[in-house]
Amino acid sequence: MEELERDLEQLAEIGGVADGGVERLAWSPELRAAYAWLEGKGRDLGLGYALDEAGNAFLRWDAGTGPALLIGSHLDTVPNAGRFDGTLGVLAALDVMRAMRRDGRTPRRPLRLASFMDEEGTRFGTSLLGSRSFVGAELGDVAERADVGGITLREAMRAWDRDVDRLAEARGIDGVDGYLELHIEQGPVLETEGLDVGIVTSIVGLLGLHVTYSGQANHAGTTPMTLRRDAFAGTARAALRLRDLACGTDGMTANVGIVEIPNGGKNVVPGRCSFTIDVRSATREGYDRLFRDVGAIVELIAADEGLEVEIAEIYRLDPVPMDTAMVDALERAAELEGAGHRRLPSGAGHDAMMLGAHVPAGMLFVPSRGGISHNPAEHTSPGQCALGARVLRRAVEALVC
Amino acid sequence: MEELERDLEQLAEIGGVADGGVERLAWSPELRAAYAWLEGKGRDLGLGYALDEAGNAFLRWDAGTGPALLIGSHLDTVPNAGRFDGTLGVLAALDVMRAMRRDGRTPRRPLRLASFMDEEGTRFGTSLLGSRSFVGAELGDVAERADVGGITLREAMRAWDRDVDRLAEARGIDGVDGYLELHIEQGPVLETEGLDVGIVTSIVGLLGLHVTYSGQANHAGTTPMTLRRDAFAGTARAALRLRDLACGTDGMTANVGIVEIPNGGKNVVPGRCSFTIDVRSATREGYDRLFRDVGAIVELIAADEGLEVEIAEIYRLDPVPMDTAMVDALERAAELEGAGHRRLPSGAGHDAMMLGAHVPAGMLFVPSRGGISHNPAEHTSPGQCALGARVLRRAVEALVC
Repeated sequence: MEELERDLEQLAEIGGVADGGVERLAWSPELRAAYAWLEGKGRDLGLGYALDEAGNAFLRWDAGTGPALLIGSHLDTVPNAGRFDGTLGVLAALDVMRAMRRDGRTPRRPLRLASFMDEEGTRFGTSLLGSRSFVGAELGDVAERADVGGITLREAMRAWDRDVDRLAEARGIDGVDGYLELHIEQGPVLETEGLDVGIVTSIVGLLGLHVTYSGQANHAGTTPMTLRRDAFAGTARAALRLRDLACGTDGMTANVGIVEIPNGGKNVVPGRCSFTIDVRSATREGYDRLFRDVGAIVELIAADEGLEVEIAEIYRLDPVPMDTAMVDALERAAELEGAGHRRLPSGAGHDAMMLGAHVPAGMLFVPSRGGISHNPAEHTSPGQCALGARVLRRAVEALVC
Repeated sequence: MEELERDLEQLAEIGGVADGGVERLAWSPELRAAYAWLEGKGRDLGLGYALDEAGNAFLRWDAGTGPALLIGSHLDTVPNAGRFDGTLGVLAALDVMRAMRRDGRTPRRPLRLASFMDEEGTRFGTSLLGSRSFVGAELGDVAERADVGGITLREAMRAWDRDVDRLAEARGIDGVDGYLELHIEQGPVLETEGLDVGIVTSIVGLLGLHVTYSGQANHAGTTPMTLRRDAFAGTARAALRLRDLACGTDGMTANVGIVEIPNGGKNVVPGRCSFTIDVRSATREGYDRLFRDVGAIVELIAADEGLEVEIAEIYRLDPVPMDTAMVDALERAAELEGAGHRRLPSGAGHDAMMLGAHVPAGMLFVPSRGGISHNPAEHTSPGQCALGARVLRRAVEALVC
């Protein structure tokens, strides 16, 4: 068994739950145990360990001079998670350092492994807290946010000897001039096309809306079709129209994932219907167009159906293009390893989204079986993991050796 | 103030709740008080009172010989009801008898006022229990059904000195050869067209389905549009296709009133979506076609979207045409009263649906302001109520005098 495979198995036991699932929430004892494991692995390789004020863990290979290249991902998970999301990126980075050490490949400049805190954000609604803090981004008022058990972020951080009021001190981007992250695809494209790795061109921009259509609740038997103002009919039209738009626009997705008809009844014409819209676009131009088109579609359908409409923005993130030199480096590395590859956007957010807004960043995807993630059934084969780590190593060496 | 208007006000106080609402559930003390009020009114007119084994109340005018003409509706209500649904039909029938007594118009054959038990069915899910029992229809296993407080129908009936095992003894249709019911429209047609009364041609047939589409839950950002099996998209298409069908078919309605996406998330492609379909048709031919078309639409969309589908029938009632002679009698009566009128189907079920399957039945609608019903805002003006009662009286006298 390769070391990377063994590392994956060991990590799956730290916070392991039923059915092969893993649970290492942000600021949890399980995540702390994983960090301790990482520190030990670093010690074995003669690498220094550091934990910053935002709970990001680092292994430092302080070679040469100049700004550092950062490689990594995150070790925190969602509840009842799989064993690959985030973890594989950290362990592949460890594997790269181990292989370089073993082969006597010394970097010309500092190389650091990063495991960013709370990428997932499930516990406190503070996703990307670690990488946000690391790049010095605005965090907003997060200190007193509580988890389902009533524990606040402040309290959870205190248990780690960390002070929520000092998060800003975690800013470390200034000494860094590049970031590479290996991650599972969490989608079906690579598997469907039989490829080994994906080179991420861009992390998509997101727009999340909460829409409420209001018409008139009426008896479904006694109200003629022509006299109805059916809030669900408007919702159905909006969902299908958005789907058509996404299907006809390269790199765009659209989803209506939550639909609620309050006080709905079998024989009651829906007087009110609330739903969420999640639209994403990989390019800046596509993203800007989304803002115009999605709102217009929702409003036009409301007018056509005689509905009132309320639209609330629930999230909004600009697309983050990956650095072209990083994309090229990863692509060359894939070629040299003989890995089947393609370029593709990332439809999900990642720490590379934060880093990429400040330094040249690149991402490498390995296949997810069935596209499944955030689930114990998440799977990438040992061979696929190893090949991904080898591609990452080639790219890292091309950048720092 | 006319007597009918005063009666309506008195009844609104029996079981009166906040905001002018009324609550007289089946087998409740409030309904019993309303029956006692009715018995007293009958006594004032010299009419005998009877309560059958199914909780149906009658006032008997035992004149002449031959089978009886029955007129009435129901005094039970839904929770937080308006004051007109059902009640107006019973009070209009009382008003007809009172006016005939006053004017010395004696029927050639027996005339009876009926107030049927539990037309609404809210408490025990036993709608039309009284009229079903009266016509000798199959009731199924209803004895141990419990209300929200855990009281069974058996117990609730015992409090009225009635035995659920003797419901069959309420069969009384054999001595009856006609039924007339005045009711509020509970829809917007008469008000929209500025008419005084509607002559019901048919009580629509109903088909109720519960459909579940199953596709594949996936991450809405990482799953390309072409690789999705979105259960909500199928639901949206089915709802709009059914609406198109109903809009293009005379006398048909279609409604998707309950929609549920279990474990739905903003960024999760809906893997499962359940929804209800309520379709109605006024004619036998339209109704038969519905069975074929609705199922086919749901199945075809499933196939087209790559979804699995489960369809469960939750209710099904044949359309009940009103008797043509009764329709003619009501129409003539409206003409003679100078009431603006039209023929129309009833999109809701009524006791006349049960009676009409056994004896010639007719229904007269008066306008509902805004089409609103099952709500304290339910309203029909005193003038509209009085005009409806006069039309009913003319039809009754034409049939029995």
